[in-house]
Amino acid sequence: MKLTDPTQTLAALIRCPSVTPEEGGALTTLAEMLDRLGFRNDRVTFSDEATPDVENLYSRLGSGGPHLMFAGHTDVVPVGDEAAWTQGPFGAEIVDGEMYGRGAVDMKGGIACFVSALARLIERKGAPEGSVSLLITGDEEGPSINGTEKLLAHAKAKGESWDAAVVGEPTNPAEMGDMIKIGRRGSLSGTLRVDGVQGHVAYPHLADNPLRGLVMLADALLDPPLDAGNERFPPSNLEITSIDTGNTATNVIPARTTARFNIRFNDMWSAETLADELRARLERAARQAGLRPGRDPVRYTVEFDQRSSPSFLTRDDALIDALSEAVREATGRTPALSTTGGTSDARFIKDYCPVVEFGLVGKTMHMVDERVALSDLESLTGIYELFIERWFERQRSRAG
Amino acid sequence: MKLTDPTQTLAALIRCPSVTPEEGGALTTLAEMLDRLGFRNDRVTFSDEATPDVENLYSRLGSGGPHLMFAGHTDVVPVGDEAAWTQGPFGAEIVDGEMYGRGAVDMKGGIACFVSALARLIERKGAPEGSVSLLITGDEEGPSINGTEKLLAHAKAKGESWDAAVVGEPTNPAEMGDMIKIGRRGSLSGTLRVDGVQGHVAYPHLADNPLRGLVMLADALLDPPLDAGNERFPPSNLEITSIDTGNTATNVIPARTTARFNIRFNDMWSAETLADELRARLERAARQAGLRPGRDPVRYTVEFDQRSSPSFLTRDDALIDALSEAVREATGRTPALSTTGGTSDARFIKDYCPVVEFGLVGKTMHMVDERVALSDLESLTGIYELFIERWFERQRSRAG
Ligand SMILES: [Zn+2]
Ligand SMILES: [Zn+2]
Repeated sequence: MKLTDPTQTLAALIRCPSVTPEEGGALTTLAEMLDRLGFRNDRVTFSDEATPDVENLYSRLGSGGPHLMFAGHTDVVPVGDEAAWTQGPFGAEIVDGEMYGRGAVDMKGGIACFVSALARLIERKGAPEGSVSLLITGDEEGPSINGTEKLLAHAKAKGESWDAAVVGEPTNPAEMGDMIKIGRRGSLSGTLRVDGVQGHVAYPHLADNPLRGLVMLADALLDPPLDAGNERFPPSNLEITSIDTGNTATNVIPARTTARFNIRFNDMWSAETLADELRARLERAARQAGLRPGRDPVRYTVEFDQRSSPSFLTRDDALIDALSEAVREATGRTPALSTTGGTSDARFIKDYCPVVEFGLVGKTMHMVDERVALSDLESLTGIYELFIERWFERQRSRAG
Repeated sequence: MKLTDPTQTLAALIRCPSVTPEEGGALTTLAEMLDRLGFRNDRVTFSDEATPDVENLYSRLGSGGPHLMFAGHTDVVPVGDEAAWTQGPFGAEIVDGEMYGRGAVDMKGGIACFVSALARLIERKGAPEGSVSLLITGDEEGPSINGTEKLLAHAKAKGESWDAAVVGEPTNPAEMGDMIKIGRRGSLSGTLRVDGVQGHVAYPHLADNPLRGLVMLADALLDPPLDAGNERFPPSNLEITSIDTGNTATNVIPARTTARFNIRFNDMWSAETLADELRARLERAARQAGLRPGRDPVRYTVEFDQRSSPSFLTRDDALIDALSEAVREATGRTPALSTTGGTSDARFIKDYCPVVEFGLVGKTMHMVDERVALSDLESLTGIYELFIERWFERQRSRAG
């Protein structure tokens, strides 16, 4: 295998059926490539209650600073309807300039390009003065319990520290060079329960329909918008994800109903200030409902999930500029610096060092016929190679 | 057994465990009592797809007109938590002046009082000049498929016709003499489905949350009230009985959601005009939702159940007055003439003859420790006896 050729490094990874939480040979294959480049591999398996054991890999090249981390995952989502694939999902077949396979863009492709970029740089100039590490989990598409979060703590406990990190997730919506992600909105979920009094629909005065109250409280959650966003972040957004009553009797007013909701919030809120705002909205609407003739205030409880994540914004100009310039130079396009989209493992890494995300085009991720253009693989390999070179240069000139 | 004693006739019926759809000996016991009073019994079993076979009894005394029908049911709802009963649910035990048992008030008690009232009248004056029939089903607490509706058609096909009917359901909310029911609101149920576009909560612009639309459409169904009622009927009322989405993923915007609703409507509406009004409200709200910036009209479907029942009002003054006067004379109280409450088999009988409802006090119906005061049994027996006598007098004087 020529490590400098991303179609070869990616094909080797796609051929490992590493459907989460299975290692499937993917970490072993990657570790062998890194071994050939001079990395020191640390394979580690994490366990937890009620989730499967998961294998992870931390691998470092060099021993001094500055220290650049590349983070990602080799696990992939299930293939879905295998019969619907036009090429085998683990075959790495190339058809019309595209390589097919689960993980092609999310994100074995990102890993393959980074390995090939490093191989090219080492071939051209030797290893960077400093260290490069790969922090690769097999638990990104699963519960994310035995993955990046624990691997970071494990490495830190062994004395590791980093100056910057790049996550290789597919960040470009349509074309290479579209978008670098430099932060992320926070996420908060909650459950609203409205209690009423069960009864017969023909005797509504003897009952209290919780769905009447729920409609009013839901309205208060949805309206008005939480904020209008700012120059750094899009507006915060609340979605009610499910309302469930489970009453099958047409002539019965139910005793209670629940609603689940999730908010993706920007840096104008913390999980705490946001929960306070929502509690205040609910309380106001519940009381207002009681002002209508013959109605009581809505009786409800709201609970926010423990596992929320805060918003974050990376402000390391040296890191962002090195990556933006590499993208511009390789593609001729100026990438948007975005904070949109769903959470990624960057939410864990941000507590250790500045982190940005840039990878392939995400259009086919998680879909049947996931695939990547060979020209995109070449483009990303070039971008990563330029970026690594530029980032170490900036660190040296800063230190000097 | 002394047929003139309602505690004896009721005890005999309670001791038959006729939990719907089981006959449990109740119709046989009743038929034997009626046989002793000179009735001709017609036992008939009805069958239908997907529901149990159910036994019924039509029994007539006399052969000429006028013809008074008494209607009711011997089936009872299940006992529920039997351990919670202080007396056996089929024991007919008398404690502190009350007889305990499933069906005591709903409505073996009503049947027992009618039988004893007739027995007293026959003992005192002989059988009424005309006919009295009992139309008794074992399928009122069940699906009501193999019961009153078919029994009426069966009797009519054999040449039966009636001038008036009394249904012996427990109509008094708190005390004997509270309430005669002279009609009923109609009932219409429907299902509202709102379609959206499934997606990730972090990318709401790529999805369309159906719950947002549902909250707006539900609001339009609930508000403003359908009408304010009139002198004959209480206001029509809509209850949303269930909203269900079934989405367990916190980070997913669901593709669709449904709501079930039921309307109890007065004589200002038919099922058709009401459905038209609700369709118009939904259409208006769906369009209005589309006027908000960045939002489309709500995509929804609404379906109304085939099995609706219209409202009805009994306008037979001779029937209503005979019953009201009997109640007043026996209890010293003037009963309210009401159209409130849930449907009963009167909705089928109204198509054959004028029908009113009067029976015991319903407080303990369907509950653990269902029971009836012996004084109420005596009161209702007296009321029925007076009523039968008065009704036949009025028919004679009208005819004469
Ligand atoms: Zn991924
Ligand atoms: Zn009943």
